[in-house]
Amino acid sequence: MNIDKYPSRLLENAVNEFSKLPGIGRKSALRLVLHLLRQDTEQVHAFGKSLIQLRDEIKHCKVCHNISDTELCQICSNPSRNASVICVVENIRDVMSIENTQQFNGLYHVLGGIISPMDGIGPSDLEIDSLVNRVASGEVIEIILALSTTMEGDTTNFYIFRKLKDFEVRISTLARGVSIGDELEYTDEITLGRSLVNRVPYENSVGR
Amino acid sequence: MNIDKYPSRLLENAVNEFSKLPGIGRKSALRLVLHLLRQDTEQVHAFGKSLIQLRDEIKHCKVCHNISDTELCQICSNPSRNASVICVVENIRDVMSIENTQQFNGLYHVLGGIISPMDGIGPSDLEIDSLVNRVASGEVIEIILALSTTMEGDTTNFYIFRKLKDFEVRISTLARGVSIGDELEYTDEITLGRSLVNRVPYENSVGR
Ligand SMILES: [Zn+2]
Ligand SMILES: [Zn+2]
Repeated sequence: MNIDKYPSRLLENAVNEFSKLPGIGRKSALRLVLHLLRQDTEQVHAFGKSLIQLRDEIKHCKVCHNISDTELCQICSNPSRNASVICVVENIRDVMSIENTQQFNGLYHVLGGIISPMDGIGPSDLEIDSLVNRVASGEVIEIILALSTTMEGDTTNFYIFRKLKDFEVRISTLARGVSIGDELEYTDEITLGRSLVNRVPYENSVGR
Repeated sequence: MNIDKYPSRLLENAVNEFSKLPGIGRKSALRLVLHLLRQDTEQVHAFGKSLIQLRDEIKHCKVCHNISDTELCQICSNPSRNASVICVVENIRDVMSIENTQQFNGLYHVLGGIISPMDGIGPSDLEIDSLVNRVASGEVIEIILALSTTMEGDTTNFYIFRKLKDFEVRISTLARGVSIGDELEYTDEITLGRSLVNRVPYENSVGR
């Protein structure tokens, strides 16, 4: 079915908006919109408002850069978390993956990506300076580098390692449980949990 | 990844709403929401508002029951369409499919479903009485039954045929171009267009 003619401009608008989302073609968008049309008004209002409110009110934690409803996120502001260990991750999905393992009680640092010359992402595009500042504050005993085990992840690990090597801080990476070439977020919880518990000093991991 | 812990209630709300949509799991919902978070505020507002506005302002045409921005839809209110031929379809996607063939210049009647005892849908749940009223008004020369060629479609065709057989109206169905057991909306445009042009009297189609 080639969809050109919409019986309603309102319908067409909504389909256009849905089909801007990644992985949603015009036909899927139409199905989703027609589904919403069959829902209660309140339900559709709740949906639309949840997106608007999210975009308007969401914050990034001023310390770890995880997304948050408050200036300081739930994790950074939790006094029972161990503030001397920081786990460095690429994005907030990785924070959620690691939290789900329930194997980590330290804090996080969300880089916002990894170094990728092909995509034009360099160190200055990432939250690396703010990580160095956190380490320079002196409270941090250990940095766990929990990036994807890809070439870009390795490059980023090495860049951070060099930036931090003159500080009195232990730098470790996830244990071998994570297979080489795997994206962190697709790793199952048990593997990910175990690789956190068995983490190794970064120096030991380079010669693998 | 088992997603239980969200770093933000706002994020969780938006993910919950997206994952109510058919075919969108919690992980896909999270990806879509994180995508929206990277868009401009205006873009996300436009998305949210398009859904709210659609639900608040959409109408159903009082004649053909197609969805519409106005009381009488674009098709019913178009004086160049042939008001003496009515094509009976299951839903608005079917109207769009047939409009895309550019082979039909009559009007439509959207039943809102087909008779399906398994799903508890009987004739009174569909816009069948209003179809009979349109025929009874006397302006209609031909009714084209363009329902899916499934058991339910056949049952609905036969029910409508019996309701209309005492009126002076020709009742036809789509030509054989549509394969038996196919859903109308998955039929390619050429087949669908040809089957409209070659439509046959309903009586001839029963003994197939
Ligand atoms: Zn934080
Ligand atoms: Zn109409």
